[in-house]
Amino acid sequence: MSILVVGSVALDTVHTPFGSADEVLGGSATYFSTAASFFADVRVVAVVGKDFPEAHLAFLKSRSIDLRGLQQVPGRTFRWIGEYGFDLNDARTLETQLNVFADFKPEIPQSYRESELVFLANIDPDLQREVLRQVRSPKLVAADTMNFWITGKPEARREMLKAVNVLLINAAEARQRAQEPNLVRAARKILEWGPTSLVIKRGEYGALMVREDTWFAAPAIPLDSVFDPTGAGDCFAGGFIGYLANTMNFDETNIRKAIVMGSVMASFNVEAFSLDRLRRLTYPEIEARYKAFRRLAHFEDL
Amino acid sequence: MSILVVGSVALDTVHTPFGSADEVLGGSATYFSTAASFFADVRVVAVVGKDFPEAHLAFLKSRSIDLRGLQQVPGRTFRWIGEYGFDLNDARTLETQLNVFADFKPEIPQSYRESELVFLANIDPDLQREVLRQVRSPKLVAADTMNFWITGKPEARREMLKAVNVLLINAAEARQRAQEPNLVRAARKILEWGPTSLVIKRGEYGALMVREDTWFAAPAIPLDSVFDPTGAGDCFAGGFIGYLANTMNFDETNIRKAIVMGSVMASFNVEAFSLDRLRRLTYPEIEARYKAFRRLAHFEDL
Repeated sequence: MSILVVGSVALDTVHTPFGSADEVLGGSATYFSTAASFFADVRVVAVVGKDFPEAHLAFLKSRSIDLRGLQQVPGRTFRWIGEYGFDLNDARTLETQLNVFADFKPEIPQSYRESELVFLANIDPDLQREVLRQVRSPKLVAADTMNFWITGKPEARREMLKAVNVLLINAAEARQRAQEPNLVRAARKILEWGPTSLVIKRGEYGALMVREDTWFAAPAIPLDSVFDPTGAGDCFAGGFIGYLANTMNFDETNIRKAIVMGSVMASFNVEAFSLDRLRRLTYPEIEARYKAFRRLAHFEDL
Repeated sequence: MSILVVGSVALDTVHTPFGSADEVLGGSATYFSTAASFFADVRVVAVVGKDFPEAHLAFLKSRSIDLRGLQQVPGRTFRWIGEYGFDLNDARTLETQLNVFADFKPEIPQSYRESELVFLANIDPDLQREVLRQVRSPKLVAADTMNFWITGKPEARREMLKAVNVLLINAAEARQRAQEPNLVRAARKILEWGPTSLVIKRGEYGALMVREDTWFAAPAIPLDSVFDPTGAGDCFAGGFIGYLANTMNFDETNIRKAIVMGSVMASFNVEAFSLDRLRRLTYPEIEARYKAFRRLAHFEDL
């Protein structure tokens, strides 16, 4: 089944205590679609400038990602410059250059309009709404809320939340937006706004999923090879939605497996700068790490 | 089987955004032994002052906790005053009054010396060493490292670590003490110092256990009823060591179950001030919550 993703395609400059990467391939739609491409067909809606390297386009095409919705327009590509401290947790944004992204108007190619799954990465809720208007009855709509709330567009946001089946959110953001320090009560409040499932991302602590009053806790695998966490959340979303598209089963049992697959893809991505780890990733490695997650989380009944 | 615990018995004053408790029963040995008493016989080595309320002694006795090693000496009982912010994470210590704890010399009653399991709560490593010298060949020694390292006694600490089978430590402390921001490498380094198992406590994120290169991640259950986290780490240790004493099986499969039991006991304890939740806790409730942890963490193979 096919996934439509709308988000950013960017050139990132990243500084970590272990090294730096300069103007490398990045962006939410890029990370998402590369991770998802291991499981399903992916169609990208995004914009880049005339300066966007041909090699990056070739890489995405090599992953069989459909780029007919990727506009290339006069101007410079979106750029993000960030750095991480020794614990590799929160990114500190040093600079954001919107460039061609500032005037981005998503246009959905005719061939994309029957996409069964839609992933709305972190863009303006007005743009997200615009995308949804152009897609015919998708079976599942998922959205990432990073930076979603700071646009000061409560009306667009409220409407969006009603159209979203699965909302991905950071734990701190969930607490902040629900104005509720207790995560269970915060989740309940957010679910009342529309989504049927909430996925709470907790970085090195894994992810929580809640539907009605059922919770699932997926661990993150402890790695001695964490190098650059940029894109981990988008790779998580890519593995998660990719696995759902591959199986087209939205039962809770399968959603749990999909969340672990999200964690698997994120765990690979942090092992190198940019998409370098995913470039050389194989499906047997994915299966082996899924099994490692099973061993990590397993315990017997009393 | 019997557990010997050495630690503090205290009167705590706790402020949270949801209420305050004044001079209530607290202390690491108290929380540990109450939690462990649901699974095994517990023997306490600690000290209180003449001001220690008789009702607290009666409560501990009602849990069949052996208090022959609890000295009651002239002076005031150890007191801790602390507060928590809205997220109920880190405690801020407002005041510590050591009182009779300042001159505490643990004396192990003859009847305690055959204890099969020993838990060394957070006390001076010299005192921990003194306790171990008085116990005959225990089958398992576990120690909590909170405040363990700030005593400036590297020699005593090094010797202690060699005698300890299971070390419980906070994630931040593990990183700090190993001088290694990566948790996997930090754990490897600490295991070289002596312990065969390391249990890394992560509060609301659960716990990690590592032995050789095998990791286990136990989640924490999301609760809408978190009220006061004081004593959660000691209740975790009590459920963990208590279950091991009950089953006397130190295989990895059983250690995993024991860690989840630790999480179960900690999850109850945070639901009320002091030991109030454990006072009315029943074994069927414990079994039911263990099952809830199983549902929380379960996912199928691919």
